[in-house]
Amino acid sequence: MKIQVIPSLGEINNEPFDGTVVIVIDVLRATSAMITALAYGASSVIPVEKTEEAEKLRRPGVLLGGERSCRIIPGFDLGNSPFEYQNDIVQGKRIIMTTTNGTRAVQRAGAAKEIITGAFLNGRAAARKAVLLGVDIVILCAGTRDVFALEDGLCAGKIAMDILSQTERKGMNSEINDFGRSMIFAYERVKDRLADALLKCQSGQRLTRLGFQHDVHYCAREDLYDFAPAIVGGQLLRSSLETIQEF
Amino acid sequence: MKIQVIPSLGEINNEPFDGTVVIVIDVLRATSAMITALAYGASSVIPVEKTEEAEKLRRPGVLLGGERSCRIIPGFDLGNSPFEYQNDIVQGKRIIMTTTNGTRAVQRAGAAKEIITGAFLNGRAAARKAVLLGVDIVILCAGTRDVFALEDGLCAGKIAMDILSQTERKGMNSEINDFGRSMIFAYERVKDRLADALLKCQSGQRLTRLGFQHDVHYCAREDLYDFAPAIVGGQLLRSSLETIQEF
Repeated sequence: MKIQVIPSLGEINNEPFDGTVVIVIDVLRATSAMITALAYGASSVIPVEKTEEAEKLRRPGVLLGGERSCRIIPGFDLGNSPFEYQNDIVQGKRIIMTTTNGTRAVQRAGAAKEIITGAFLNGRAAARKAVLLGVDIVILCAGTRDVFALEDGLCAGKIAMDILSQTERKGMNSEINDFGRSMIFAYERVKDRLADALLKCQSGQRLTRLGFQHDVHYCAREDLYDFAPAIVGGQLLRSSLETIQEF
Repeated sequence: MKIQVIPSLGEINNEPFDGTVVIVIDVLRATSAMITALAYGASSVIPVEKTEEAEKLRRPGVLLGGERSCRIIPGFDLGNSPFEYQNDIVQGKRIIMTTTNGTRAVQRAGAAKEIITGAFLNGRAAARKAVLLGVDIVILCAGTRDVFALEDGLCAGKIAMDILSQTERKGMNSEINDFGRSMIFAYERVKDRLADALLKCQSGQRLTRLGFQHDVHYCAREDLYDFAPAIVGGQLLRSSLETIQEF
């Protein structure tokens, strides 16, 4: 089993996503918010790239969520703070979510056998699901505007480490690219002070300036949720075993 | 002072090298070999990209060195193993050196105010010289065929850490990009077992298969040399204060 960690969307160079499982990571804050929404009962999250696409999908029973430059989009129901999704109003709702980096990452992984969303909040579950699929694994860090973001790299390191320990326990051969190995080292170094590390990285500093320091602390919590949402027919569901409902 | 670590040559996107000091790193083995050659008395090292360019510069008093796929180039005097340069034969000689990645990295940094070569062998000296110049610093990991290589990233982490502690001691403001920060974490994690980490990365494994395990151990030694060679008029010299001789 090959495990490849890709630093940012800017570094997808004709990557062979076909037949692999891709774990998309955008810790601050897209995948953390999506996972939280599903944990709080949203029926699905539909990631779209552009604001106009989201507007077109507006109808009863649907909430529009997303951000531009860390702020809620005017006219949308919800922003990108995970706390906005810890709420009864998401229960049973479809969420159309557009974010700068995370949504684009999910869309870029289109040719994969399975696309999973990962974050610190569900890292162990994401690793477990990926290993169960038994194919090569790509961990795709969304980054910020095509540039590597520390929080995504550290989360990739956590998930890669979990994957390697699981494959080892099962006696499976696995190999990881140098970038993935470096992210494991980096994660191991700061795992006992993750929130601090996230507050100091560029996204963490920007969110703190905008008053979202609590979001950073929350997104640094590990394995709070034990499920790894998967994209099925363009919709992100808690489990790929769920039946999708036509939209 | 801004410190920017770039993961590989593939990720130089119109980087603003103008006016900066660029530290080029190719631990396994180009910059390690160049530094060793100068430590053992070579008068200068001239990095060139192509074998034919090196051949054209052949004349008395000049040695040709370099590798393709980790092996000496047919007809050349020396390969890319640092041990070949720990030798009386380099004393007072110019070395024309062509290597796959390191030389290209030096050439790509062309517009910089100063280009320094760094490796574990001289990391502290490279950091000190860069800080003394008082301008923004780019640490350019050569990588392997445009892809990130762990050994270069770890060395970038070491040098970045040294730079930050020096600027802090001097009361200078400094900021570092997220990638550089992640490499500091990775280096801190493995600094007590650097040779092991280098033996496990992709270049280390390849060199070991080819019988160059001792090279990896040597290139993992830290601060063996207390000078940081700089490019002056296309030639790499022990110090940019040396007078270059016309060639």
